[in-house]
Amino acid sequence: MTDSPFFSRGPRRHVDGDFSAEELTLANRNSGIALEMMRHDLTPAGMHYLLIHFDIPDIDAEAWRLNVTGNVTSPLSLSLAELQTLPSRTLPVTLECAGNGRAGVTPRYQSMPWRHEAVGTAEWSGTPLRHILERAGIGERTVEIAFLGADRGFAGGVEHNFGWSLTPDEALSDDVLLCTAMNGTPLLPQHGFPARLIVPGWYGMASVKWLTDIQVLDQPFDGYQKTTAYKFRRDKDDPGQPIDFIRVKSLMIPPGMPDWFTRARLVEHGPVELTGRAWSGAGTAIAKVEVAVDDNWFEALLEPPQDRFAWSNWRFTWQATPGEHVLKCRATDENGDTQPLAPRWDNSGYGNNAVHVVPVTVR
Amino acid sequence: MTDSPFFSRGPRRHVDGDFSAEELTLANRNSGIALEMMRHDLTPAGMHYLLIHFDIPDIDAEAWRLNVTGNVTSPLSLSLAELQTLPSRTLPVTLECAGNGRAGVTPRYQSMPWRHEAVGTAEWSGTPLRHILERAGIGERTVEIAFLGADRGFAGGVEHNFGWSLTPDEALSDDVLLCTAMNGTPLLPQHGFPARLIVPGWYGMASVKWLTDIQVLDQPFDGYQKTTAYKFRRDKDDPGQPIDFIRVKSLMIPPGMPDWFTRARLVEHGPVELTGRAWSGAGTAIAKVEVAVDDNWFEALLEPPQDRFAWSNWRFTWQATPGEHVLKCRATDENGDTQPLAPRWDNSGYGNNAVHVVPVTVR
Repeated sequence: MTDSPFFSRGPRRHVDGDFSAEELTLANRNSGIALEMMRHDLTPAGMHYLLIHFDIPDIDAEAWRLNVTGNVTSPLSLSLAELQTLPSRTLPVTLECAGNGRAGVTPRYQSMPWRHEAVGTAEWSGTPLRHILERAGIGERTVEIAFLGADRGFAGGVEHNFGWSLTPDEALSDDVLLCTAMNGTPLLPQHGFPARLIVPGWYGMASVKWLTDIQVLDQPFDGYQKTTAYKFRRDKDDPGQPIDFIRVKSLMIPPGMPDWFTRARLVEHGPVELTGRAWSGAGTAIAKVEVAVDDNWFEALLEPPQDRFAWSNWRFTWQATPGEHVLKCRATDENGDTQPLAPRWDNSGYGNNAVHVVPVTVR
Repeated sequence: MTDSPFFSRGPRRHVDGDFSAEELTLANRNSGIALEMMRHDLTPAGMHYLLIHFDIPDIDAEAWRLNVTGNVTSPLSLSLAELQTLPSRTLPVTLECAGNGRAGVTPRYQSMPWRHEAVGTAEWSGTPLRHILERAGIGERTVEIAFLGADRGFAGGVEHNFGWSLTPDEALSDDVLLCTAMNGTPLLPQHGFPARLIVPGWYGMASVKWLTDIQVLDQPFDGYQKTTAYKFRRDKDDPGQPIDFIRVKSLMIPPGMPDWFTRARLVEHGPVELTGRAWSGAGTAIAKVEVAVDDNWFEALLEPPQDRFAWSNWRFTWQATPGEHVLKCRATDENGDTQPLAPRWDNSGYGNNAVHVVPVTVR
């Protein structure tokens, strides 16, 4: 907490309809995937979504250290060179922002108003976090392990470095990586250079960028982002439920060509290959994808993913006839979870995995 | 023209205040630089601004050809391999979107509502266009040379491929490049792969991406973007003036740290190094940059640019005292052109080079 004027800013409102200046500024600042770029299994540099809470830190890789402190046998202070001597894995992982789809939840909570773009897939390379935790030696009474980034600012009146936490069981998974490379090259500054966490299967807030500190705690982490910001809530007074795994979702590459301003789509009649991606959280495979044409549902052809944490490709050939049509897609995962037809309510607009609706004009 | 339903969409309105759903969708789709990333002389991959009118084309580099046709002695159809045998130059170039700053022009024309982010600097590599034009042999009565991209869609009811044109004198400059690389690597799909034009000193619309056709014309190019979209206009009935060179401009890296939602800035008292960039069009050097603290103006230290088409760095040490302050920066170029204190009017919000205003709280 702080006594700065930032502390006294009131709670954010909900609105219906037009977007505020603050929402527009966030939309200009944060960037998402152009949906047609989902055609690439791995999202090209500069097309992977970015949700950056504060400023992109300017980190000197030579001076950078990763400090492991708290309830450990041997506190560590690792250089980048030391980190890169540890055993490494590469995993293709689909990441999605917990706020993706917020613009579709009405009334709309004032935050980054994503429509569908906050998703991307990359090959992340780094050492499984457990190698570091095992070297430090986690104390017996450890409850949580906190991860703090170099990025600092205010949210909800609270000054803090961005941070998240995992339980020891979660953190010791062989899939949780401390990454120094993305798609085979060193992390770009905006993706967490020189090192970041990747927590596959979780919404993006867990994959802390610009990591500088790992704190092994004998009590729950009290960081603002974990305790307050990222919670599912019915209303503002609801203490809330934790946000963790990505919900099942699919998106369609809009067919045809767009109008510049409205992004309305014009499609030529005849056979049209509809295609897109589907994914779920916690390493759960996609069981099926369905496509609706004017609310008649058909099963799409589903391809196997590159890896259990990466999205699947799907395709469906539509015989397009002239006129106005509404296309939709819906995924179901192997747990039987399926996308709802309409957004489910959340006070902060988190976790909206409603079916993707794409109106088109066929000529 | 076309008889599709897209043709009948009405003219776009002007609004004051909140942003429409269409503006928000464009802001989510197009991406700009995070201002703190202006600290890099060359904008890192994924941070250079992108204004993409239609969809990002999916181009097979093996099948791609650059066709040079029209009023020429020898029509050409060049493969990428042939293009890459031609003499090559590398130029650092600052590009800016003509619509940058549109969100600050009131009432606001409905289009991409950039605040300040539509700028970036890269090293562009390719062959001077004149090598290709000389090989094709430009006919004597040539009036304009048109450049068409593979990107196709609707704007203002008109179906077209994005295109621009230059006069022969403009096109034969040794600085106009047909580029296949950006910052030393092949163009990313979203930056025009496999080849694009770079027209240094001009607003970005001239640097046609995904180039497929060069048409040598004995009459002015009639493409929608050149004749209609990119024009300075007093009102919608004004036939308009052409948009060409970038206007003198400067931006400041906002000091201190931000509030996530409002992006308000908190700065610690004491000496604060303010820094930013300044640039102008047509290869005109920056003569001076001034910084205002609460409307008292001081001259900043100006560093020479990397090259005549690249932005200059500037810096100024401010002794920050607790309280609320308003910082501004203003550049003047060697032609004596200087940034206005308030946005000048344009019907479509083009060319807004008003001084950058950064309010901060000092503690």
